[in-house]
Amino acid sequence: MPFEAQDPDFEARVRESLARQAYMTKLGVTLARVAPGEVHLALPVRDDLLQQHGNVHAGALASALDSAAGYAAFTLMPAGSGVVSVEFKVNLLEPARGERIEARARVVRAGRTLTSVAAEAWAITGSAERLVATFSGTMMCLMGRGISG
Amino acid sequence: MPFEAQDPDFEARVRESLARQAYMTKLGVTLARVAPGEVHLALPVRDDLLQQHGNVHAGALASALDSAAGYAAFTLMPAGSGVVSVEFKVNLLEPARGERIEARARVVRAGRTLTSVAAEAWAITGSAERLVATFSGTMMCLMGRGISG
Amino acid sequence: MPFEAQDPDFEARVRESLARQAYMTKLGVTLARVAPGEVHLALPVRDDLLQQHGNVHAGALASALDSAAGYAAFTLMPAGSGVVSVEFKVNLLEPARGERIEARARVVRAGRTLTSVAAEAWAITGSAERLVATFSGTMMCLMGRGISG
Amino acid sequence: MPFEAQDPDFEARVRESLARQAYMTKLGVTLARVAPGEVHLALPVRDDLLQQHGNVHAGALASALDSAAGYAAFTLMPAGSGVVSVEFKVNLLEPARGERIEARARVVRAGRTLTSVAAEAWAITGSAERLVATFSGTMMCLMGRGISG
Repeated sequence: MPFEAQDPDFEARVRESLARQAYMTKLGVTLARVAPGEVHLALPVRDDLLQQHGNVHAGALASALDSAAGYAAFTLMPAGSGVVSVEFKVNLLEPARGERIEARARVVRAGRTLTSVAAEAWAITGSAERLVATFSGTMMCLMGRGISG
Repeated sequence: MPFEAQDPDFEARVRESLARQAYMTKLGVTLARVAPGEVHLALPVRDDLLQQHGNVHAGALASALDSAAGYAAFTLMPAGSGVVSVEFKVNLLEPARGERIEARARVVRAGRTLTSVAAEAWAITGSAERLVATFSGTMMCLMGRGISG
Repeated sequence: MPFEAQDPDFEARVRESLARQAYMTKLGVTLARVAPGEVHLALPVRDDLLQQHGNVHAGALASALDSAAGYAAFTLMPAGSGVVSVEFKVNLLEPARGERIEARARVVRAGRTLTSVAAEAWAITGSAERLVATFSGTMMCLMGRGISG
Repeated sequence: MPFEAQDPDFEARVRESLARQAYMTKLGVTLARVAPGEVHLALPVRDDLLQQHGNVHAGALASALDSAAGYAAFTLMPAGSGVVSVEFKVNLLEPARGERIEARARVVRAGRTLTSVAAEAWAITGSAERLVATFSGTMMCLMGRGISG
């Protein structure tokens, strides 16, 4: 079931907000795909994202997954709104190793206030992809609180 | 109910492992407290940890919480073991603003293979502390897989 | 930090709503404690609550925990409101065996729309108590939707 | 990616274990589908499963989802093993109303000790289906502990 964005400028809003996320810039995250109810973020695997065993840190995966999920929800929110995370859970399936991580988020159900989002982190090396983590989260739409993006 | 560490060198093992986490170094995380079943990590709030509204990114909170929880579990594991995260959930309670974040983790139940950990993220400004996120997670002990720390 | 109920009739509201939960009646759940931000429910261990190994089923624990958490949040909500669960997570720590289970829930943070709640399930035999599961969840306050309790 | 069961008698094992779950019998749960890595359970909507607003209680949904997930994992485990839940999270998407609930679980990744499972609860009325809850959980395989099923 495809989603329809109520704000035709949803992509510009996502790009503008992501550009203001200093933390995403620090991690090297870029936007790989944006569509109504769906956002993919790419995270190049660099040495400074690793944990003690040489795999990408679960927190770095969670960071990309949370932003992808927030923006997937945000594509369906009205102009002038802001998005914040209420909660999320991450299941780590196997060591995250590869050239880059893709965090792929898709809205499960969009409500007026709360949006439920599922996401997956894939570790990519050449043309091979491995699922390394799954994510489920709840995102909240803020209106009229002086917050946007 | 206090925990007892089976390896008297638990603190040295935690410090050595944390020093090998390039990602924690990148975020500026330092060890604030280590005791059997308990680890606190400190995260100074810098501009490059913020999201689009000027608060600490939920992913940065999750990163510090996950490492604190992993090491809290690790204090109770035997020498020569390694620790990995199986899953965790974060609930975001209010905007994370302040001078620094403390991620405070405490073991709830330690098993031979799996350890359940609860943690909290506090935003600290001067002598004021506010609870900004709660965390629950499952950590796994790896033995004899050529992984340590 | 103690909570204050904005509706002095919070206890009557909780008792009245619980009495309407046919499912709680079916499980044998009774109210063991109600205070602002806190609710304990008791679940006698009967054969028809068990899973295949003779322990209380994780779903029965989750059921009591979810109701306790919802009502803990509900004590702090205004008169005329309704409460629903947004999400919850349960960590199972050890086999749930004993004479009765107590699901003890306490509000972590109460917002106007969303309330975060933590809860624990204890298995009780005589005067001995064992922690068998932990719970974290998000509860939502509904106003003006023709729903109460 | 389809899963392969290492024990050809996986279906008999699931049926036999489910029959021993007194709690599932109490709820009226029946097996709707079993295949390697996949189990669907059906839960007829009766008055005694409802919460205070007349919807199926989140705990009843969680109960069916947890059993479905446990058995989806169990299909891939070896003969002589037992399965227990480590943790699960449920997101409630909308009021659960209809003639019956189907809890549909599918393994995401099967490991030797831990298996990650995703599941969904659908409310079914005639030929109409609505997604009412999503679930993610971790199941553990027990061997040689005198537990089976």
